[in-house]
Amino acid sequence: MSQTRRDVLTQLGAAGGASAVWLAMEALGLAAATPAHAERFALPAGSGRGREVVILGAGIGGLVAAYELRRAGYHVTVLEARDRIGGRVWTIRGGDRVEQMGRPLQRAAFAAGNYMNAGAARIPSSHRLILSYARRLGVPMEVMVNCNRGAGWDFGGRVIRERQAVNDMRGRIAELLAKAIDTKALDQEMPKGELETLRQFLAAYGALDEKGRYQPDGRSGFSEEPAGYAHAGVPAKASAVKDLLSSRGVVLPYLFEQIFDMQAPMLQPVGGMDGIARALYREVQPSVRLGRPVTALRRVGDRVRVQHGPDGQWIEADYCVCTLPLPLLSKLDADFSPAKKAAMQDVPYLPSVKVAFEAPRFWEQEDFLYGGVAWTDRLNENILYPSDRFHAPTGVLVAAYVAGWTNPDNPQHFAGLSHEERIRISRDSIEAMHPGRSKLLTNPITVGWGLTQWSEGVGAIGPDWGDARRGARYAELLKPEGPIFFAGEHLSYVGLWQEGAALSAHEALTLLASMSAQKGRGRI
Amino acid sequence: MSQTRRDVLTQLGAAGGASAVWLAMEALGLAAATPAHAERFALPAGSGRGREVVILGAGIGGLVAAYELRRAGYHVTVLEARDRIGGRVWTIRGGDRVEQMGRPLQRAAFAAGNYMNAGAARIPSSHRLILSYARRLGVPMEVMVNCNRGAGWDFGGRVIRERQAVNDMRGRIAELLAKAIDTKALDQEMPKGELETLRQFLAAYGALDEKGRYQPDGRSGFSEEPAGYAHAGVPAKASAVKDLLSSRGVVLPYLFEQIFDMQAPMLQPVGGMDGIARALYREVQPSVRLGRPVTALRRVGDRVRVQHGPDGQWIEADYCVCTLPLPLLSKLDADFSPAKKAAMQDVPYLPSVKVAFEAPRFWEQEDFLYGGVAWTDRLNENILYPSDRFHAPTGVLVAAYVAGWTNPDNPQHFAGLSHEERIRISRDSIEAMHPGRSKLLTNPITVGWGLTQWSEGVGAIGPDWGDARRGARYAELLKPEGPIFFAGEHLSYVGLWQEGAALSAHEALTLLASMSAQKGRGRI
Repeated sequence: MSQTRRDVLTQLGAAGGASAVWLAMEALGLAAATPAHAERFALPAGSGRGREVVILGAGIGGLVAAYELRRAGYHVTVLEARDRIGGRVWTIRGGDRVEQMGRPLQRAAFAAGNYMNAGAARIPSSHRLILSYARRLGVPMEVMVNCNRGAGWDFGGRVIRERQAVNDMRGRIAELLAKAIDTKALDQEMPKGELETLRQFLAAYGALDEKGRYQPDGRSGFSEEPAGYAHAGVPAKASAVKDLLSSRGVVLPYLFEQIFDMQAPMLQPVGGMDGIARALYREVQPSVRLGRPVTALRRVGDRVRVQHGPDGQWIEADYCVCTLPLPLLSKLDADFSPAKKAAMQDVPYLPSVKVAFEAPRFWEQEDFLYGGVAWTDRLNENILYPSDRFHAPTGVLVAAYVAGWTNPDNPQHFAGLSHEERIRISRDSIEAMHPGRSKLLTNPITVGWGLTQWSEGVGAIGPDWGDARRGARYAELLKPEGPIFFAGEHLSYVGLWQEGAALSAHEALTLLASMSAQKGRGRI
Repeated sequence: MSQTRRDVLTQLGAAGGASAVWLAMEALGLAAATPAHAERFALPAGSGRGREVVILGAGIGGLVAAYELRRAGYHVTVLEARDRIGGRVWTIRGGDRVEQMGRPLQRAAFAAGNYMNAGAARIPSSHRLILSYARRLGVPMEVMVNCNRGAGWDFGGRVIRERQAVNDMRGRIAELLAKAIDTKALDQEMPKGELETLRQFLAAYGALDEKGRYQPDGRSGFSEEPAGYAHAGVPAKASAVKDLLSSRGVVLPYLFEQIFDMQAPMLQPVGGMDGIARALYREVQPSVRLGRPVTALRRVGDRVRVQHGPDGQWIEADYCVCTLPLPLLSKLDADFSPAKKAAMQDVPYLPSVKVAFEAPRFWEQEDFLYGGVAWTDRLNENILYPSDRFHAPTGVLVAAYVAGWTNPDNPQHFAGLSHEERIRISRDSIEAMHPGRSKLLTNPITVGWGLTQWSEGVGAIGPDWGDARRGARYAELLKPEGPIFFAGEHLSYVGLWQEGAALSAHEALTLLASMSAQKGRGRI
């Protein structure tokens, strides 16, 4: 069966090039790596036979492509515009320059060991592929705390603890549902026995008393905490639904920890999120040329030519793997087909912004917050407490992570503010969460991805990049153009994640290897 | 005001001894350390003035007492029955002997770096006091993953992932409540506007479609995971309530992560849970005598005499801090008052049991489970994946933690089984969770706390040790007897936790220091 399918592909490949191969593969349900075993991906050993591949971009997509192609015997050149690898995986450490287009230069002054993950900042434990690279390359991993029941929710001008919001909401929902069951309002919805079982369960699930009223048992916190000897705990009073939903922006925080890619446990490389990119770089370093922005891309017969660097050098290769994000690709001087050019125009990219400070770890010393996320309907949206090096004297607090979590208009608006304004807003939010402590915040750094050269955004968003099966525009962007194959988080259903970049690279390589095998056969 | 209160206490102390002081303090609302600032506890500097204190037991309660008394200038002797400190904080490493009363000797064969926390195994980030000791003493801490959405729930003979159970249940509850709201069954319960706000919220909270039906969006997992290129995700089918509640034992897992002391994030010392006990021990080591079980306790005037060790030595002191658990205390040859003796008899102690294996980390390599807890209605109840040293070649898997999580009768029953039976049951559960992998399990160790000498149980349970304010029996046990003060997790409302032991020690020391101050004044 699979032999037959491969035969079909071989014929198509010979006739129509890689594009036809890819379309046929998709039609046959064979499209590239099987996700369930993506972590076992490898191109056939020796199959590269020295063929030349030029890779555009040394982010995760480009680095993974380089790593796998080199393993299979291809001759690889990676062209990277920046003087660093990693792309949107950008860990800023003390001494680093932070450039933003049209903004004053910043220089990070963090102490050794402290860092800001300006871009990627978490790895779900369900992201098997990127974790497999971490494991294979010996990158030490630790837990990234993505949920902290002690963190504050500052909505409608009032700060409560996450444990109160989450558990009071759960209790109120259980209470109302129990009432509906008790009044037989749902007798038509479910068999009687099932409804009775559920009713009993709700008492435990929502901490309901024997009359079905929500009676907090400490899960939402205590007004007096239980302690030694005679100190019995006094549970906090239950909140009303209207107080729990006091602000439109508060919805996402109730969902956040349940989103597939945000579920516990989350992980991070020890020492900064760029750990995996750096480990890949160590493997492929001889192939990588930093400071070489791509300025033109041409097909020459069945090969490809790329102009790069300030000196306008040209490089020619059998194949190209292009991982440039769409805002850059759409501006590139390239002889893409009209359909491709049309598809890559005007795709909105998320201009999210972060602000970080260095400070003594008052959030640990005084509030016992070990990692986690605080939420607010202020403009800064998010506060992220560091998950590493607990009890170190200082740490880097991400005091704003504006990505539309609590209001979709925030990123654009916040990105437009001056650095000083962003920093002031972030300080004010810390002051609301930790009264008297904003004065301890030092060494601010802010990164807006819309103003970050060679990225111009964090990832593709909008109607064409949803979770549901995507339309013609997306399909067009996946297609190879002759010897040019495309990769990047925007060419995956795991968008805005390192995993998506790596998975899309595997897809591109599978097509590339397929075309390469065709050519090989042709030559024999 | 506080001066006046202190005067009252002073007079009472002079007249009635520490018991009266304590009762008066309680009446005045001054009972010992204020929980909110427990981490700043310190006896007045130099207040010990060389007075002698004998401490019974070198668990957390005894070690904290020794540390604080030494800091204040007391002369301290800690008598510990075992040849190790830590009590129910017991980290077993390769080469350790594991003795159980009436059972064959076990010896742990774990590789270096691997360990089993036979007793205490987690620290909530809300346990400020024990974390403050960790911080002060420089104990490195890391996250203990207490919740893993990828872990298995094996109930009614079927294994599903936690993410499916938790999110399908949430969706089904939201769906039913939305239906009840839509049919106006709850119009009398809440103002109309509030109900409308809640109804809108439920759509997001429970992933409801426009008709109010639960429509999984990936939060409960995927039948086909989203991946690169054309691989759109296909969310798993929604479970019915009856399948989500297929077994009586399944209720606790739905609550577990919401229990105050189990909420994210949890922590652990790097290298084993005994890290804090060991750090305290380093501070007080000259005061500690190991291998000295207490055999008799006598009051002599306002002082105390303690007989200890196989040679029956006596030690005399001004004060005693007794941290022995009740199963031991109730059997001790002591001249306690009849009321005290009556109160300490027959308090049930939880006989929980663990079984651990060493194995290659197949749970990480194949299932991407980084820490967390799996649940089952099998006898082993719990599987705990290690939260440390991710990607190390081997790890210790706790394959049974039987504490009544899924059935209150389990601990007693499982404790009565032979080691071989316990191990077989645990293996079978691993095989159900990880088909084909139980053959990798090696070096089993099992610890049942009911059969562990010098503990005879994990902690006080039953009606007298609930969360609500406790009755006369508990109050009696708190009271000092002349120069003897009592501490231990059982004398706290944070029972079965290191925090409770430490908090109760602070309470005992506050009383002791108060009596000591009285005596000092008497002498001047």
